[in-house]
Amino acid sequence: MTGRHGGADIGPIGDSPVIVLVRPQLADNIGAVARAMANGGLFHLRLVAPRDGWPQEHAWRTASGADRILEAATVHATVAEATADLHRVLATCPRPRHVIKPVLTARGAAAELRAICARSLRCGVLFGPERAGLDNDDMAQADTLVRYPLNPAFMSLNLSQAVMVLAYEWWTAADDTPPRTLMTNETRVAQKHELDRFLEHLVGRLDACGFLDNLPKRPGMVRNIRHFFERGEVTEQELRSLFGVVTELSRRPARD
Amino acid sequence: MTGRHGGADIGPIGDSPVIVLVRPQLADNIGAVARAMANGGLFHLRLVAPRDGWPQEHAWRTASGADRILEAATVHATVAEATADLHRVLATCPRPRHVIKPVLTARGAAAELRAICARSLRCGVLFGPERAGLDNDDMAQADTLVRYPLNPAFMSLNLSQAVMVLAYEWWTAADDTPPRTLMTNETRVAQKHELDRFLEHLVGRLDACGFLDNLPKRPGMVRNIRHFFERGEVTEQELRSLFGVVTELSRRPARD
Repeated sequence: MTGRHGGADIGPIGDSPVIVLVRPQLADNIGAVARAMANGGLFHLRLVAPRDGWPQEHAWRTASGADRILEAATVHATVAEATADLHRVLATCPRPRHVIKPVLTARGAAAELRAICARSLRCGVLFGPERAGLDNDDMAQADTLVRYPLNPAFMSLNLSQAVMVLAYEWWTAADDTPPRTLMTNETRVAQKHELDRFLEHLVGRLDACGFLDNLPKRPGMVRNIRHFFERGEVTEQELRSLFGVVTELSRRPARD
Repeated sequence: MTGRHGGADIGPIGDSPVIVLVRPQLADNIGAVARAMANGGLFHLRLVAPRDGWPQEHAWRTASGADRILEAATVHATVAEATADLHRVLATCPRPRHVIKPVLTARGAAAELRAICARSLRCGVLFGPERAGLDNDDMAQADTLVRYPLNPAFMSLNLSQAVMVLAYEWWTAADDTPPRTLMTNETRVAQKHELDRFLEHLVGRLDACGFLDNLPKRPGMVRNIRHFFERGEVTEQELRSLFGVVTELSRRPARD
């Protein structure tokens, strides 16, 4: 089967929840699920009664290199069989009815799954078939439901998108990237004395060309210029460029 | 063009960020993007130089009813044209290089976008083409970059998945669903006196059948039984069922 060998190195496969696709219909979706799982660091895939059998060539096409997940996927006849060795089972379910069970948001579920794995228990998350979702018997096999906060006027979520949201939350739950940073490559944020040196240079040139000749207004104008350059985190590389820009502008008469 | 009329009512279109797809290649992905946008309450789609032109039939097929978004989508020749009326532009970018700019996580970006919209400024988010992502000129048009925390060993994110994560975070940023609730239908969580009444009934039946005859152990056994039933939030409907189960078990001799 073409494309079933190799695939990307998708990183270490540690203790992480099992994704259980219940009666999935489209191979394209199974592959897209594997890709989304790899994105979020989930590696264990189980298929319950896939409609068109397994393996299916199309899945490898949409997996975009997450072949290891597809190759390790197991096929099961029933949800009970697919979850027999798990300690905890969550079930995604957009609109549960006639069910009495705890319900977690996607974020709540990620925190719960992290906590379960930290106790060395095995857990899994059920995702229903594309059209109908999980039925009542499927949900009865889970101890907890998961319902994403999403636009209630348009809840129709693609299967791989549903897995993506969970995988993303799973990864994010253990991620400590600050919500805001400054990308700086080989440069670094300038210190204030470097900014001051540039501002002195700029003001000197503006004085030289007569822009600041109005003495009563001069302090306010200088302050406004400083305000602009203070606003962001200027890097020392940017300051060097700006230094050159000012020098060149003030050295040569404009040619137009 | 079939299927381009009607579509689901996807809810009110308020002030929300514009999603700008830069040189998108596949109509399937554009449709899937519209679906993901509707899921997360984003409604404004702009296309910069779509490879195969616009409109394209395939997009409506994968939009799964988010037709209104596709029908309102506008096409632009350049990123500059597509963003000309915006006050703030963010650009998604998995691995920025040689760029000095603030970088937000997906969650940080959602908070920022909410804050921008709350000030009645118009904002947009650039998503690059499927294979290559945004190029350096595209990124230079944005004031802020967005980089999702995801498995660094497998960053290859499908275009519609990338939009899904942002749309999900956008919705979640304004959502106050508690991370854990109990789904209860028409019933309600039982009060302790109702649980006590059930436990009295159970213990009474166990006394009657001789299960608690070992008097020194009786208090511990009763306590363990109580611990089990105290563990979750039992509903009054469940207590009524359990009451019946205990009554019936203790009334009739087993038939096997």
